[in-house]
Amino acid sequence: MKTSTSQKLLAETLGTALLLAVVIGSGVMAERLSGGNVAIALLANTLATVGGLYILIEVFGPISGAHFNPAVSAVMAWRGELPAAALLPYIGAQLLGAMLGAWLAHAMFDMSILQFSTKLRGGRGQWIAEAVATFGLLLVILRAPSSRVAAMVAAYIGAAYWFTASTSFANPAAVFGRMLSDSFAGIAPSSAPGFVVAQLLGAAVAVGVNQLFSAADPQT
Amino acid sequence: MKTSTSQKLLAETLGTALLLAVVIGSGVMAERLSGGNVAIALLANTLATVGGLYILIEVFGPISGAHFNPAVSAVMAWRGELPAAALLPYIGAQLLGAMLGAWLAHAMFDMSILQFSTKLRGGRGQWIAEAVATFGLLLVILRAPSSRVAAMVAAYIGAAYWFTASTSFANPAAVFGRMLSDSFAGIAPSSAPGFVVAQLLGAAVAVGVNQLFSAADPQT
Amino acid sequence: MKTSTSQKLLAETLGTALLLAVVIGSGVMAERLSGGNVAIALLANTLATVGGLYILIEVFGPISGAHFNPAVSAVMAWRGELPAAALLPYIGAQLLGAMLGAWLAHAMFDMSILQFSTKLRGGRGQWIAEAVATFGLLLVILRAPSSRVAAMVAAYIGAAYWFTASTSFANPAAVFGRMLSDSFAGIAPSSAPGFVVAQLLGAAVAVGVNQLFSAADPQT
Amino acid sequence: MKTSTSQKLLAETLGTALLLAVVIGSGVMAERLSGGNVAIALLANTLATVGGLYILIEVFGPISGAHFNPAVSAVMAWRGELPAAALLPYIGAQLLGAMLGAWLAHAMFDMSILQFSTKLRGGRGQWIAEAVATFGLLLVILRAPSSRVAAMVAAYIGAAYWFTASTSFANPAAVFGRMLSDSFAGIAPSSAPGFVVAQLLGAAVAVGVNQLFSAADPQT
Repeated sequence: MKTSTSQKLLAETLGTALLLAVVIGSGVMAERLSGGNVAIALLANTLATVGGLYILIEVFGPISGAHFNPAVSAVMAWRGELPAAALLPYIGAQLLGAMLGAWLAHAMFDMSILQFSTKLRGGRGQWIAEAVATFGLLLVILRAPSSRVAAMVAAYIGAAYWFTASTSFANPAAVFGRMLSDSFAGIAPSSAPGFVVAQLLGAAVAVGVNQLFSAADPQT
Repeated sequence: MKTSTSQKLLAETLGTALLLAVVIGSGVMAERLSGGNVAIALLANTLATVGGLYILIEVFGPISGAHFNPAVSAVMAWRGELPAAALLPYIGAQLLGAMLGAWLAHAMFDMSILQFSTKLRGGRGQWIAEAVATFGLLLVILRAPSSRVAAMVAAYIGAAYWFTASTSFANPAAVFGRMLSDSFAGIAPSSAPGFVVAQLLGAAVAVGVNQLFSAADPQT
Repeated sequence: MKTSTSQKLLAETLGTALLLAVVIGSGVMAERLSGGNVAIALLANTLATVGGLYILIEVFGPISGAHFNPAVSAVMAWRGELPAAALLPYIGAQLLGAMLGAWLAHAMFDMSILQFSTKLRGGRGQWIAEAVATFGLLLVILRAPSSRVAAMVAAYIGAAYWFTASTSFANPAAVFGRMLSDSFAGIAPSSAPGFVVAQLLGAAVAVGVNQLFSAADPQT
Repeated sequence: MKTSTSQKLLAETLGTALLLAVVIGSGVMAERLSGGNVAIALLANTLATVGGLYILIEVFGPISGAHFNPAVSAVMAWRGELPAAALLPYIGAQLLGAMLGAWLAHAMFDMSILQFSTKLRGGRGQWIAEAVATFGLLLVILRAPSSRVAAMVAAYIGAAYWFTASTSFANPAAVFGRMLSDSFAGIAPSSAPGFVVAQLLGAAVAVGVNQLFSAADPQT
């Protein structure tokens, strides 16, 4: 039986919502408990994100591909693995999910639902970091065997939280959701465009680099 | 050779006992060693729970299904994967195991065996969190391929310890066992009913959402 | 080509040596770096042990079974999976390896090679903990599918470092090696007999409990 | 379709660059956030390295073998698994990648690109540690089933960061890249030769020990 379009969009919305709830919620919990030690807070935030991302990709992958990320959907559409007509609905579902996920985190932690981050993020280093983070994410997605893609994406993001100077958003929908949370994982709306542009550039470079390796690709 | 009913009930009792010993025991150890940094204590509690849950599901899954959780057993009975007549014995075995596990933890840590938690947990945010936590747990269980369910449940609970405001009990038997321990992982008896109601609601929502995706299910 | 006896004994010696070097060495490193926070030190000690145990079982399992533990070898001999005549040589190889591993850790950390621990460990709670720790280890080994035994043993020990009050030695050879190190992971020689007796009792209980489940065993 | 030599060299360069960016970048992030607790910094550095190494070996293994390490390439050439003529180009690609990776980390963290470490590392214990670290790495690589080599190498290095007194460089290209970074993961150029000699000795011992087990090797 074929998965319907509405099932796919529901999977993208629900999966992105849970992803943002994990990222933002664990950031709030970590900041509250860590007594001001940011490294401990980021460690907890990292481990929660790794576990959550792993299961969300395993659960929703067979339904919608588990993109949860407009940059991933754009690349998949460019490669013909997502019908072009599905791209905008996918992105809409992801942005809706990201918003709902941020709000769900706020509801769980007794915070006001509607809020905007005031945390400025940017500058040359951070933008390079976001490009690198998204480049790596797409390279992993494009080259992982499907049976390992969930574990690999989760492991990659766990590393990228630490090795990129921006803590690796690597996802325009994550930027959107985090804009809506004035907490540990937030990003001020004025900082969002720089991050998104850097992410799209990183994704484009990954597509190009992947093509350099395409002759090594067993499917080719 | 078929697994007998008494073997299944023994597996549920022993598995739930070890699960609660892991959750409560590692909470006691973590609190004693962490010098008051709650984030470090919860990190240790999380890692121990993830490792313990993973091996307990792998070990007891082939015998009893490794529910260790009345909400899981109820959903399995509702779906016809557990005979209706087995539901109450399963729940009894789980509650008995939870009690024995709490007591085992106390015996190991030279604490008085019989005790009751005084830690109040509740309020709108915590109840939403328990519903979300149990919703996610059931969604993972209902959609995981059987070869990965142990790793996925463990990873999910690891994330949920941090992203839900309640640290994710997600299990009425765990609530029962933790009621019996006045330690890091405890919950006051007066707070238990609110948690259990929220968990059952979350489990019911998971069943409904899973049905929305059922056409995507290869078994259907 | 068959593995020779000397290859098996070399594998047990080398594997146990590396295991003790991991346990003791990471304990020394963790204690030196953690600034007195014992929870952070034990977290690092745990993660190093989990990673090391995983790869040692994967590497040496196909050669010798990767017991590294007299209690495991005794159970395997009792079950007929290790020839009775091989039991004492296995135990000798393990004890030799444990000693060499402790000494290797000392050499790496510029400590005097020959030393004895002064850390007293014991009492009712600790002995119960060692019995529980070894019970769980043997249950995992006896019931794990062979393709997952390395990951399961590693995950179990990671949990057991925290949920048992004794930090889970669960291995008479580990007791022997740790006796020889006056560091974070050490145990005073006078405390060793109590730990070993508790471990053997725990292993015996695991054999009995495993038999209760034997009809559920697909091989039976 | 066969992988071309230039694809292989690109994979070694890019993979080694990303590996060093992970090692150095996560070290910088960890040091900045950890408030002076070196154990917490090393824990974060370890987890990032484990995740990064895992995905880099999975991604580049099918293209170039994912050596990222002159000691590994030398052993593979000695065994005939890498053509002798490819050895020097591989090492050149790895050293180039290591340099670029260090510089990428500096660019992301707004540090001056060109720098040299002033952190002296050495002495008998550290050299023994590097020999042990590289011995273990090669033993894992030589004996791991190919489907698990990425997870096993990552787990091994995670353990070795803690159980070896040198935090396990175990890779002459990593020494070269870290020389170029005056940060947490750095090593002074004057300390580099001692580390590299120790690594090559450790690798040679691993080749010898592996031969002792070769009759146990199913391929033999």
